[in-house]
Amino acid sequence: MGRWEPGARERLVMAAVDLFHEQGYDETTVTQIAERAGVTKSTFFRHFPDKRELLVAGQAAMSALLAEGIRDAPEGAGPLDAVALGLRRAATAYGPMSREIAPRMAAVVAASEELRQRSAQKSVGLAAAMEEALMARGVPEVVARLAAELGVLAHHRAFTRWAAEPDATTEAMADYSVEALQDLRAAAAALA
Amino acid sequence: MGRWEPGARERLVMAAVDLFHEQGYDETTVTQIAERAGVTKSTFFRHFPDKRELLVAGQAAMSALLAEGIRDAPEGAGPLDAVALGLRRAATAYGPMSREIAPRMAAVVAASEELRQRSAQKSVGLAAAMEEALMARGVPEVVARLAAELGVLAHHRAFTRWAAEPDATTEAMADYSVEALQDLRAAAAALA
Repeated sequence: MGRWEPGARERLVMAAVDLFHEQGYDETTVTQIAERAGVTKSTFFRHFPDKRELLVAGQAAMSALLAEGIRDAPEGAGPLDAVALGLRRAATAYGPMSREIAPRMAAVVAASEELRQRSAQKSVGLAAAMEEALMARGVPEVVARLAAELGVLAHHRAFTRWAAEPDATTEAMADYSVEALQDLRAAAAALA
Repeated sequence: MGRWEPGARERLVMAAVDLFHEQGYDETTVTQIAERAGVTKSTFFRHFPDKRELLVAGQAAMSALLAEGIRDAPEGAGPLDAVALGLRRAATAYGPMSREIAPRMAAVVAASEELRQRSAQKSVGLAAAMEEALMARGVPEVVARLAAELGVLAHHRAFTRWAAEPDATTEAMADYSVEALQDLRAAAAALA
């Protein structure tokens, strides 16, 4: 392990992913998660409203990064170029903790109907954040909506690839995101 | 009202939508839904596993219609032309009951976090059904994925428009779906 030292919030996420993976999401209690993380139950509730939200804790931060990257794109950049910059900005969130928990996280979400639903709703939130940022740049609504969907698809495709490669870096996550977006742009051309 | 007479399943859905709308989703029990529908609680459970599934009851039927429409498209039809036929086929499910409950249904889903999550997961299922049907026609994976997303977006945009027009017919739902898909195709051209 490197020099990265997790705080209480990170320890809670890692403990939860471990427990969900070991014994199942439904069977795991907040008490068990707090115990494994070495914190009190009230510390848990200072960080998360419940165990479900814990697994999508990064949603607000991720939405903000995507929107910022789109907002900061050069004035003449097209919608998908702006989305690419949003994806690059969002990839900065994929640091050591994501690297460590990504494979188990993916398995845990796949195994729980409740978490799959929460994850789908997370995607809706990410798309909405990108759509809004694109419309603020003057992109027409239907184009902004579609560009945002392409952004979400690219992000998921990149994450799946990244999670499967134990040594992939934060920079690789950015590159995979932009490559996936290029593939989707080509697919859009094929459909149009 | 016309000559359409709902069976137990339809009465349960309508009673649930009414109760969710009147008193909130969280506050409504299966007992209350069964009572309002004039059936027993065990009849409820013969039709639905719980109150949440009741609101997405049409998912399996809708997925099947979308996939059938795509499968039955003429051999030379492009991916989005096949999706358009899937959407037309799916629109046949938008009959008198949908017409009656659509506006309240939309309000109920918007008001409940749990139902918004279930609804997002439903969209994932519809997209997967279309993607699979497109790949069975030989459409490459990434193109099929994107065409399926366009289909889901078109379906939602059409439903929002249709639900807001009290006199819109089943045929109108089909037309709105295809129009929405054309708008999205134009957006794809703008992005590509």
